[in-house]
Amino acid sequence: MSEIITAGILVIGDEILSGRTKDKNIGFIAEYLTNIGIDLKEVRVVADEEPEIIAALDALRHRYTYVFTTGGIGPTHDDITADSIAKAFGVGIDHHPEVVARFAERFSGPGELNEARLRMARIPDGAELIQSATILAPGFKIGNVIVMAGVPSIMQAMMDIVSPKLKSGVRMLSETVRANAREGDIGGPLRIIANAHPDTIIGSYPFQDEDKKPNTNLVVRSRDPEKLAAAMAAVKEMLKQLHGGA
Amino acid sequence: MSEIITAGILVIGDEILSGRTKDKNIGFIAEYLTNIGIDLKEVRVVADEEPEIIAALDALRHRYTYVFTTGGIGPTHDDITADSIAKAFGVGIDHHPEVVARFAERFSGPGELNEARLRMARIPDGAELIQSATILAPGFKIGNVIVMAGVPSIMQAMMDIVSPKLKSGVRMLSETVRANAREGDIGGPLRIIANAHPDTIIGSYPFQDEDKKPNTNLVVRSRDPEKLAAAMAAVKEMLKQLHGGA
Repeated sequence: MSEIITAGILVIGDEILSGRTKDKNIGFIAEYLTNIGIDLKEVRVVADEEPEIIAALDALRHRYTYVFTTGGIGPTHDDITADSIAKAFGVGIDHHPEVVARFAERFSGPGELNEARLRMARIPDGAELIQSATILAPGFKIGNVIVMAGVPSIMQAMMDIVSPKLKSGVRMLSETVRANAREGDIGGPLRIIANAHPDTIIGSYPFQDEDKKPNTNLVVRSRDPEKLAAAMAAVKEMLKQLHGGA
Repeated sequence: MSEIITAGILVIGDEILSGRTKDKNIGFIAEYLTNIGIDLKEVRVVADEEPEIIAALDALRHRYTYVFTTGGIGPTHDDITADSIAKAFGVGIDHHPEVVARFAERFSGPGELNEARLRMARIPDGAELIQSATILAPGFKIGNVIVMAGVPSIMQAMMDIVSPKLKSGVRMLSETVRANAREGDIGGPLRIIANAHPDTIIGSYPFQDEDKKPNTNLVVRSRDPEKLAAAMAAVKEMLKQLHGGA
């Protein structure tokens, strides 16, 4: 139960790098993984270029328990994710008969089941489909790599399908306290608390509060509820001293 | 004038990887760079861990003209960006006298200029400050690396300060046409057009339109206005054929 499960995200798409499309998937997947006890360790965004996709995928998949990719599984010439992933794994890729059969039902009009649409049925050999009645182009899982759509609503549906099949670790617990202080006023004592509580992660996040004053949220994270509670108690005691004791 | 200027972004912060904070900087910087003729080629997000920051920084700074980092330059123990960058460059780091002098004016109350705040004055040797009257903790530029705050409003102010000093290339031009068609209906002809216009990048971006119908934006990009115009003409002709000629 104490195994740490890790993950990387690989976002594939020129449109993110050009700024034309603002990514909404990284934040969603990050929060989702935290909630199911998987530690997201790294994110990369690369262009629609096969060597870039393969290099990033290989770097991530050999290092983390899982890699989640988004983007590049549509019907057009710039959708090269499936082919790049087959190449990275050294396996073949072909039209998946189950997907083709579903497409044949769905695209029954003349000329509808064209080469472009059939491109979305190209699945690397040995991959497991990620699909449902509402998903047109399926995602897939091959080895430790989960390949999903770039469109947020479809990606989110795919996460729900694939997540029950994933190993998950002991969930990282988190507690937040509002400091009512400027970050610079608590940095010193906070460092001492962080050093004294090694199995916790203590983060400090400045924000502007409702009175337009600089304020800070302090977040303590740990997999061990007792260690979390001890560190949080120390943080709260520090804040109490800061605000004049009593 | 034909030099291609490239960039990478390195986002530093546990809070992004945990999903607690949703990154807003990648999209902003991506669009900004496109507008000033710099090609963003890759983005990485890493945790507040020195070896991770150094490895990612080294991978990006040796490959691209510029690297933009965000996050980790505040006053608390988890703000380790400046120290990590000094280590990556093999230079020393110390309190910058100019920043200390500014802080001494600003934090003149008893105990205000504490160790935590002085931490924000730690600047790698040889770095150039990125600061203004409204910026508290300065960013800096060292070699080809531009180090900025994680708070979006401050990061954006820093981009405005640093951008006039950057080399910029020939701007990538872009034109968009709404296809009024499903992506799968145009993937075939679009591939032929893309192959026939090698100095352009043609992207296809599905969306749901105001009638809740699947629709597609086609984007043609090129540094050469004539090549852009020729490819866009071919795309429009293809759409005209698709929609029944005339």
